[in-house]
Amino acid sequence: MNKFMKSMVIGGLAVAVVSGTTIVGAAQSQNTKMVTVKAQSKNLIVLIGDGMGPAQVSATRYFQQYTKGTSHLNLDPYYVGQATTYADRGEDGGKIVSGIVTDSASAGTAFATGHKTYNAGISVSNEDVSKPFASIIEAAENNGKATGLVTTARITHATPAVYASHVRSRDNESAIASQYLESGVDVLMGGGKQFFITKDEKGKRTDKNILADFQAKGYTLVENTSSLNALTSKTTKVLGLFGSSHVAYVPDRTPEIPSLAAMTSKALNILSTDKDGFVMMIEGGRIDHAGHANDLPTMVQETLDFDAAFKAAIDFAKKDGNTSVVVTADHETGGLSLSRDNIYEINIDLWDKQKHSSESLAAALEAAITPEEIRSIVTANTWITDLTDEEVQQIMAGDGSSYKREGAYNAVISKRLLVGWSGHGHSAVDVGIWAYGPIADQVDGQVDNTQIAKASAAILGLDLNKRSTELQSKYLYPKFKISRDNEVLYPAEALAIALGGTYKGDTAAAKLTLAKNSIEVNLTATTAKLNGKDAAYTVDIDNGKLYLPLAAFSQLTGKTLKWDALSERIVLR
Amino acid sequence: MNKFMKSMVIGGLAVAVVSGTTIVGAAQSQNTKMVTVKAQSKNLIVLIGDGMGPAQVSATRYFQQYTKGTSHLNLDPYYVGQATTYADRGEDGGKIVSGIVTDSASAGTAFATGHKTYNAGISVSNEDVSKPFASIIEAAENNGKATGLVTTARITHATPAVYASHVRSRDNESAIASQYLESGVDVLMGGGKQFFITKDEKGKRTDKNILADFQAKGYTLVENTSSLNALTSKTTKVLGLFGSSHVAYVPDRTPEIPSLAAMTSKALNILSTDKDGFVMMIEGGRIDHAGHANDLPTMVQETLDFDAAFKAAIDFAKKDGNTSVVVTADHETGGLSLSRDNIYEINIDLWDKQKHSSESLAAALEAAITPEEIRSIVTANTWITDLTDEEVQQIMAGDGSSYKREGAYNAVISKRLLVGWSGHGHSAVDVGIWAYGPIADQVDGQVDNTQIAKASAAILGLDLNKRSTELQSKYLYPKFKISRDNEVLYPAEALAIALGGTYKGDTAAAKLTLAKNSIEVNLTATTAKLNGKDAAYTVDIDNGKLYLPLAAFSQLTGKTLKWDALSERIVLR
Repeated sequence: MNKFMKSMVIGGLAVAVVSGTTIVGAAQSQNTKMVTVKAQSKNLIVLIGDGMGPAQVSATRYFQQYTKGTSHLNLDPYYVGQATTYADRGEDGGKIVSGIVTDSASAGTAFATGHKTYNAGISVSNEDVSKPFASIIEAAENNGKATGLVTTARITHATPAVYASHVRSRDNESAIASQYLESGVDVLMGGGKQFFITKDEKGKRTDKNILADFQAKGYTLVENTSSLNALTSKTTKVLGLFGSSHVAYVPDRTPEIPSLAAMTSKALNILSTDKDGFVMMIEGGRIDHAGHANDLPTMVQETLDFDAAFKAAIDFAKKDGNTSVVVTADHETGGLSLSRDNIYEINIDLWDKQKHSSESLAAALEAAITPEEIRSIVTANTWITDLTDEEVQQIMAGDGSSYKREGAYNAVISKRLLVGWSGHGHSAVDVGIWAYGPIADQVDGQVDNTQIAKASAAILGLDLNKRSTELQSKYLYPKFKISRDNEVLYPAEALAIALGGTYKGDTAAAKLTLAKNSIEVNLTATTAKLNGKDAAYTVDIDNGKLYLPLAAFSQLTGKTLKWDALSERIVLR
Repeated sequence: MNKFMKSMVIGGLAVAVVSGTTIVGAAQSQNTKMVTVKAQSKNLIVLIGDGMGPAQVSATRYFQQYTKGTSHLNLDPYYVGQATTYADRGEDGGKIVSGIVTDSASAGTAFATGHKTYNAGISVSNEDVSKPFASIIEAAENNGKATGLVTTARITHATPAVYASHVRSRDNESAIASQYLESGVDVLMGGGKQFFITKDEKGKRTDKNILADFQAKGYTLVENTSSLNALTSKTTKVLGLFGSSHVAYVPDRTPEIPSLAAMTSKALNILSTDKDGFVMMIEGGRIDHAGHANDLPTMVQETLDFDAAFKAAIDFAKKDGNTSVVVTADHETGGLSLSRDNIYEINIDLWDKQKHSSESLAAALEAAITPEEIRSIVTANTWITDLTDEEVQQIMAGDGSSYKREGAYNAVISKRLLVGWSGHGHSAVDVGIWAYGPIADQVDGQVDNTQIAKASAAILGLDLNKRSTELQSKYLYPKFKISRDNEVLYPAEALAIALGGTYKGDTAAAKLTLAKNSIEVNLTATTAKLNGKDAAYTVDIDNGKLYLPLAAFSQLTGKTLKWDALSERIVLR
């Protein structure tokens, strides 16, 4: 609360009753391009290479050609087009700018639900009071299909999250984990155990351990390769958690940490037993992380791991005969360039000479005190035996970003590998699309990433609008503030309108009218009254904007609205 | 000649006669994938965006959306795939490394002829004695079609050159201009007048002005918009030279300098009158140059200029109904990244605020002595009124590349525009392909850039192999050296083999055998003899490698071989 906030208790809220259908009207009109047709595929596999821009793909192909002599990636024969990835301008969760350059949450929302949103938004609209958008997995659940989410990132990270949860901020991973429990998704595999267990258990949750809740719902919990392999196709629900945070990078994995292909194959075994078909999303989640760190050798290994998972998927689809496969990326990461410093070559013979990821060295690099220690770390992990004093100093100085010495180490390595990066963030270049089966004709050429969701629904004969309408009749995701007294307050104008009411604001006249002649708030510099009387609710005026607690809106709608504090959403019924 | 070179006159060369067909055997076997089929299109328009990588296209689309509110580029609806662009390792003309990162010569050779070569090679093979490869335009000439080359670069620059000339080094632009005269190409439009006129006339040629030769062959010479516009479709041959070097950048053009679209439309008017059809190549040649300089606003303007030329081409093709159109890039230039410094936005509202290209400022920037002069230049050309002392100093210091202060100016601008570059060279990321008409199905998906040439030949029903065989029976392009006495000497082993002879070298035994038991060269530390006797030719041994003059090879083949000093090629008949 800032200095402009004024609170008091006032009484008597007149109510404008609104119908539930009005609430979703706007979203429906946005969706007119989504046409549901007869199903052309029973099953759909979506694969997302997180951060896998054009240069990442070219780099990995050249690496594979050089080291293995194979002419192409498994993906290559299925290339059909490319997609724009831009985000909506707007709410950004306070951390990153939301503009043409997207994050995984905004891009994921686009290809999972068919709607653009702001960076950080997980399948909710870009509004002060956001509406949930249904994903292709949520629509598939409605039609009785089996569903799965598989990733090398935390299972609660943005890309899987957009398919089976709705929150204003991607950082709310505890809520995402809890929403998965209600989602009906049958197979969940990735990292991120920390968001299923409490702080006392070295996790992140402040409420409770929810693993038992998953097990009570029939999920088999697996946490390593052995237990993953032991699963049979008789298993119908699996929660695979292969790391506290993300699944270890390829070069850092032990045998007990499964590859993305191993997770994919097992998930396919399980999901393909459903007679109604299945929809699954498989994410190469750490291509992005290696790109953020500017760790090229690890980025290439992660892309090959993703390409191997694609092979498992495409082999299944070809054998099955009733499965569409679509592959894309959410965005490019790192501003990778395959050349630098005006040299017409990349030193690809050095790209497999780094033993472990830069991430695995970060702590040691930060702890190093002498140049000799830096030299020793670099020599132990790479081919470099002639690290210059200048390079040592560069590493010790850090790169000025949050990656500090790890970033500087990668700058030294990248210069020797002859690749460039423009920073540690994402970039706005279009990303590739690869496809197989009936979906291919609907995602080819130059498209926007929202087309992936629209095509997914079309070929499966699913209705995203219908499922969105259901969700929007249950939940709203408002911006909110918490008072000194720990009371949750909501922006009156935006929420009234989202609930189907009307709102007129006239700050010059120090007068606000909420819900069509029914509620009048009179303001002075220090006081506010509701319909001329004291109200039973806190009234907060912040920068000329009126905030009210949920009780006011319950009275407005005639329903008992509830606040889900974990998911930061209003439960409408 | 280095210190190891030894020369003497020796006599008597025995000859191994070889057939002309043997010479081209190797090239034929390389071409087995080129299958000639019945023509599916009468006409073909190839458009090349030089340096137009994925980020260049995305950038231009976002710019167009922001400034003009149009949803897509003219190109967008025709996107069908992407191409690898790698060069052959090898001969590089001594200037740039030839590896995975291609230059325009190597990439152009690939998509014009269907063959990979080294960087700098203009439609010749990657060998010590190179063979010419026929381009789709040369094959079309053989079949009576009209042909055209249109570009905003010098008409003698690498991309047009690969279609109608053959030289070991792209820098030999005087030879390229002279070869155009013999090429039969009907419409030549671009910059580069300097390679048609002598040094005395402020040109680059050391031999003669060749404009009269073109006019004698029926070419109408046009040098500005007015004379271009005055051409009617009755004109059959045009040489358009709209600049001494390259055609001025879009932001620097006067009305008398035509746009690429204007050149394209006029060329189409003229070429489309040929009853046998036509093949033309249109290059947006300066997208690349702006990329090299890291001048983003100009790069975007050049890409829009290219996209407008594409519109002229596609409008013609749709109306004509018998024309295939294919568009690609030779490579990406600059390592452009659409974001930088970890910010999730690009400042696209500033992208149209630069008045002229950085190239137009370069001389003034170099001449500036005081910080005030730098400030004044920047303020006059941009929106920037708050140039910091640090930015001024950065510009004054130059960027350490050959772009000096212009490069540093663009670094300052790019940081404010929120885009990144990895250097002033090319990069190895795959490039897009756009297509219309029967060619589209043959260049879609993930292909190599050589597929463009193969598909071009296939849909036109042309035989690239046949035309290559003809060229290879006429010309060879050897490496050579010039002695102190100004004598041209050729690598004996490579040339003997290229001429169908054999060669055995045994440097340990100081003995070399050329052309199957016929020529024996005996070496000691200081002398060399031919078949035990003095020879009538200079014999040069350089680092253990034998060099001989052309007379020796004339005797070897029984033909009078000639040296074309301008084009640096051996004329076989």
